[in-house]
Order: sequence, then C-alpha cells, then structure tokens
Amino acid sequence: MEEKKIHIFDTTLRDGEQVPGCKLNTKEKVEIALQLEALGVDVIEAGFPVSSPGDFQSVRDISLALKETTVCGLSRAVLKDIETAAEALRHARRPRIHTGIGTSDLHIRAKFNATRAEILERAVQCVRWAKNFVDDVEFYAEDAGRTDNEYLARVIEAVIRAGATVVNIPDTTGYCLPYQYGEKIAYLINNVPNIDRAVISCHCHNDLGLATANAIAGVIAGARQIECTINGLGERAGNTALEEVVMIIRQHQDLGFYTGVKPEQLNPMSRLVSDTMRMPVQPNKAIVGSNAFSHSSGIHQDGFLKNAQTYEIIAPEEVGADSSKIVLTARSGRSALAYRFRKLGYDFNRDEVDELYPLFLKTADAKKEVKDDDLLQMAKALSVAE
Amino acid sequence: MEEKKIHIFDTTLRDGEQVPGCKLNTKEKVEIALQLEALGVDVIEAGFPVSSPGDFQSVRDISLALKETTVCGLSRAVLKDIETAAEALRHARRPRIHTGIGTSDLHIRAKFNATRAEILERAVQCVRWAKNFVDDVEFYAEDAGRTDNEYLARVIEAVIRAGATVVNIPDTTGYCLPYQYGEKIAYLINNVPNIDRAVISCHCHNDLGLATANAIAGVIAGARQIECTINGLGERAGNTALEEVVMIIRQHQDLGFYTGVKPEQLNPMSRLVSDTMRMPVQPNKAIVGSNAFSHSSGIHQDGFLKNAQTYEIIAPEEVGADSSKIVLTARSGRSALAYRFRKLGYDFNRDEVDELYPLFLKTADAKKEVKDDDLLQMAKALSVAE
Repeated sequence: MEEKKIHIFDTTLRDGEQVPGCKLNTKEKVEIALQLEALGVDVIEAGFPVSSPGDFQSVRDISLALKETTVCGLSRAVLKDIETAAEALRHARRPRIHTGIGTSDLHIRAKFNATRAEILERAVQCVRWAKNFVDDVEFYAEDAGRTDNEYLARVIEAVIRAGATVVNIPDTTGYCLPYQYGEKIAYLINNVPNIDRAVISCHCHNDLGLATANAIAGVIAGARQIECTINGLGERAGNTALEEVVMIIRQHQDLGFYTGVKPEQLNPMSRLVSDTMRMPVQPNKAIVGSNAFSHSSGIHQDGFLKNAQTYEIIAPEEVGADSSKIVLTARSGRSALAYRFRKLGYDFNRDEVDELYPLFLKTADAKKEVKDDDLLQMAKALSVAE
Repeated sequence: MEEKKIHIFDTTLRDGEQVPGCKLNTKEKVEIALQLEALGVDVIEAGFPVSSPGDFQSVRDISLALKETTVCGLSRAVLKDIETAAEALRHARRPRIHTGIGTSDLHIRAKFNATRAEILERAVQCVRWAKNFVDDVEFYAEDAGRTDNEYLARVIEAVIRAGATVVNIPDTTGYCLPYQYGEKIAYLINNVPNIDRAVISCHCHNDLGLATANAIAGVIAGARQIECTINGLGERAGNTALEEVVMIIRQHQDLGFYTGVKPEQLNPMSRLVSDTMRMPVQPNKAIVGSNAFSHSSGIHQDGFLKNAQTYEIIAPEEVGADSSKIVLTARSGRSALAYRFRKLGYDFNRDEVDELYPLFLKTADAKKEVKDDDLLQMAKALSVAE
C-alpha cells in the first residue's frame, strides 16, 4: 500500500493561545515555534496579525526564526486583515495566509446579515486578495460542520478556482459525529470537480469529546491535513490534540498514513506548552498525561509484568514519557508486590509474599499509595519475625 | 423513530478509583454512589470486593445505601472472587456480578498460558458460578478489542447460553478506531445466534483519545450499555467520559437514543469526583472543563454576542455549568469590549469604543486577561479626556 503523508498544521500559537490565561509574549512564542519546527510539524499558525500589535510582532518574529516550516497567519475576509497578515509574514521562507468566512446559514444570517450568494462572493474575493501577496492560501469555511453540503461544495469549488491551495472544513462548534464528519469530506471529494487541486484540511473542536475521532474520520475520507494543538488546547473544550492524531496514525499503519512528527519529542513538547501557557494537563490525558502509562489494578499489573503488551499498545519511551509505572495500591496483587520487592533487593518466595500481602493490604487500604519506605519496613518486620 | 434507551454503567468507583492517587475511603465512596444514583445512572460498579477488605466493605455499604440503582461487583473468573463479590452484594436491591477473562491470543498465552478451548470453558464456568448467587451476570471478554472476532463470537454465544445477561466487549488497551469497534459489535450481532438474550456493553479506554468515539460507534452498531466514568477517569489515559456520551446522545437526537442521566447535574458531579479523588480536570475538558464555555477570540465573541448558537451547541446551564464567559484578551474585538463596558454601566458609542480600543489592546498585550478594574480605569481616562 502506498503511504500517504498527513500534513500536521499546528495552531497552538493561534487557536490555543487565544484561550483565557494562555497569553504568551513574543519571546515565548518564538521558543515554542522553534520547538514545533524541531518536532516536525508541517505548518505553524503563528497568530492573527491584525488582532493586536503584539500578535503582529509574534508572527513577524516567528517568520524570521523558522527555517523550513510553513508559517501561517490568520485573517478574516477583510482586506486590512489580509494586508496585515501579508506584512507580518514578509520574512517567512514559506508564508501562508489563512482566510475565510462563515458558511452555515446561522453564521450567514446572525453574524453577517447576508445571503449565501453574497458570502460566496466574499469568499472568492478574500482568496483573490490573499493571492496578491502569497502563493499558498488556505481558505476556511467557518462552521462547515453545520453548513449545507451542497452549498459548501459550491463555495469550495469557487475558492479553489480563485487559487486556494488548502481548503479547511472546520467543525467550529464541535458538533459532528465522526461518521458525519467523514461523510462531509467524502461529499466534497465526490462533488467538487477541482478538488484535486487543493488539500482538504480538518479543523475539529472538542465540545463533545470527538475532535480527535473526527479528524481521523476526515483523513480516512480523503483529507490530507489535520489542524491540531499540543495538549488539545483551544477555544472552549479545545481542538484536536496533535499527540493523539500523530500516535493514531503511527499505531494504525493499516490506514496507510504517516506524518513527519518525531514521536519521542511529544512529551517534552507537551510539558513545554503546559508550563509556558500555565495550562495543566490532566493525569488521564492520552499520550501526555502523567498517568497515561501507569498500571495500578492487580489484574493489569500482573499481566503487564508477564508481557507489557497485554495492557500497553505504546511503549512510553516511544513518546518520550517516563517508563511505565507500577503503582502499588489496595488494588495491586501479589505479583506486583513481589516485583517491587525484587527492585528493592528482596527476592521473597511465594510463602513469604503470602505472609506479607495482608500487611501490605492493610497499609494500602489506609494510604493511597504504598511507597518504597513502607515496603522496606514490611521487609524488616518479616526478617525479624523469621 | 422509536427511542432506544442506552444504559449508563458508571465505573468511577472501580476503574476510576484504581487510579494512582484516587483511593477513597468507604464514606467517600458511599457519598459518590448516592450522587451517581441521583444523577440517574443505571448501574454503579462499586468495586472489586476480593481485592482488599476496604473494597469489600465499600461494595457492602454501597449495596445497603442505594435504593434503585443496580450495584455491580467485579471479579476474575475465580470461584473465590465470585463468592466474595456475592457476599459483598448481599444487601443490594439489584445486585450484578461482573466476571470474565481475557480472550485475545496475547492474554490467553501471556497471562494464562492456556488455549482458546480452555479459556472458553473457564468463561462458561465463571458465569455458571455467578448465576448461583445472582440473576444478573455480566461477562467481560478482556482485550476483546484485539480478540479474533470469530472466536469472540463463540465465547459470547457460550456465556449467554450459560446465563449472562450482559456481555461486555472491552477495548482494554484503547487500540480500536471507531469504525473498527463498531464493526466488532456489528459482527457479534450478526454472528451470535442468541445475542438478543443479552445486552451488549461498550467498555473503551482512552489511550489514543478515542474512548468516547468508540463507545458511540458501539451503540450505533447495536450495543445498549456504555461503561464510563465521571471526568473520564480510569487506568492509564482513562475510560469513556460519562458526561461526553450522555451529551452526545442528547445533542444527536437523530441517533434515536436516550439515557436516564439528568444533564444539569453533570458539572456538580464532576466537581464532587474531582475534589474527592483529588484528580484535576483540565480547563479544556469537554462539558466539565472550566473553559468549556469560555469564548475568547474576537471573531467568536462577536458572533456569540449576536447569537450564542453561532459558537455554542450546548447552553452551559443545561449541564449545570456557570454561564458562558466572555473573557477579554488581546484576541477580543470591539464588540466584546463594548459588551463588557455595558455590563459595567458604560454605554459607549462607536467612536468612543474606537478611541478606547488601542488602549485596551495595549493593556491586553501586556496582561493575560483584562479585568473589570482595568476597564473602569480606561472609562475614567476617557471621560477625563472628553
């Protein structure tokens, strides 16, 4: 099977950074952008230049700092936005302007007080404006998730004709189910005659916890770019998490996709973003949570010690995380207990472990986690008794 | 369309509680169980009684405390486990024993050093044992996600013949893609002759960020129970998040499903579990994260203020969260600024807002978030100048 590259478009510095409490200064943004380039992403959306002088400066400095990665600036379908984005991107080796407009009937009416025909015209216009400045123009059809497919196909055909190189189909409100989002992408592939002249991009929000699944459904249906953020940061419940889609594509080689991302940098990258943006990652976060590779139930620990693959599909080292942890709690069994004693230098036989186990359980029922110090005391008690 | 009930099986107190750092005492477990009953879940998995005296006590006390909800105790395919579970559940009004064994070739070989035929026999045996104590017996085929479908179908047929009322198809390692998990459920429906005599249950892990999507794919394919936890807690990267599947089913009435869960209790329930288990929920967590209903970019704020539905598919009050927040940052536009000034009693006209906006942006570029105090100072500066 021919392997197909999925382009990773990181928007941590735009959709992620606009989150309450996440604001970064230009120096911090440049540092993250350099790390994203080292991680191997294809496109970095560096900001929304017209929104503030600080954002303009950041897009400009990131454009100067990056060597290979495409730098993208966001704009509305407004000439001033596009001019400002182009100016901020002037020094980028590979500049891209990301412009677009809402296409759902709700957005057309409530936000623009306009008609479908007027919005189609403005969509074409903004792509033409952007083409005056850069070759690489990405068009977003905001709220595409709730946009009528037939109208969406007409808009996409028109903007590709106007020169859009990438067409972004955002599920802005995180509404779609995976099969629905996949069907939308498939509809465009089947109903936009010039679709082979552009890359389809997935931009999914996580309001119902489906952003990752939707992006994967999108690429299975034919999209070739995923917009995502480190740790799934972004407006409201966030965006597709970069670390999740990259590892799904890597684990499921049956899909025939690959990305340029270096998986062993995923955990260090996650920590850098979490620390710099002061946004905690919950322990049970996939791939990058502190418990993502912890085994605590007795059944799991026993199986894991016999063969790690019984309960682990990814080795933590593969994604730059600390080694799998065997945490001793009241749910741990004799095999985990014996294993931890062996690590401490005590090679107890079966009878000895049986003797120690009730004492261990009593400690574990009283405490959340049994630590090495507790075990050493138990071992001492046993040798005194014998 | 006939509406079909999806049974919500909460395992916060078993799969969630076994997480490092989450250990609860019996009193805390009973309190959470009572709140889960008030929330409207159908089944509460209260613990793994044989694992420790503390866990036994908790299952016993929860059985005494609950009035309507089914109380479930976990066991391995071991007679002593099942006897202990039955004893702990003795006072439950609706007791269920959850027993089972690993069915993937990896589990059969690495954990049990056995053959497929031997495991099938032990599966039937454990269901028969459990049936001696209770009518309601749920069988789990551990690592079903990586189990050969044809063998899995034979195991499921045999355990239903032995009396299993619910058959749990766990994706223990969080490996499946949604379409694959859906296909597995569909395979069982089409290839297990007596499948109509049991309820199929989805138990999905989140190692690749797909637990919620997989559970939904499972019920679309014909499963009628979802095993899940509050805040998605559970081994490693956790389980399907209860709040996510409940709200997907509620938002997507096109699917024709419903649950008995009261959505307005989801946020209070999330906080109770997070506080009691000392497990933080990240701000960008769907439905229950502190930012799940925050709007911060200018484009989003402007749209939201014109019509909330442009960027919000769920009203926060519907899930017991605080009202949607308009957070003022460097990404905010003039309409959000004017809106917040109006809330503070200043009804500025367009020119005045234009005049204030650069000052606002300067403050916002320097700070993470512009607070009411900052705005009051700006308003004062403007009136002095005029």
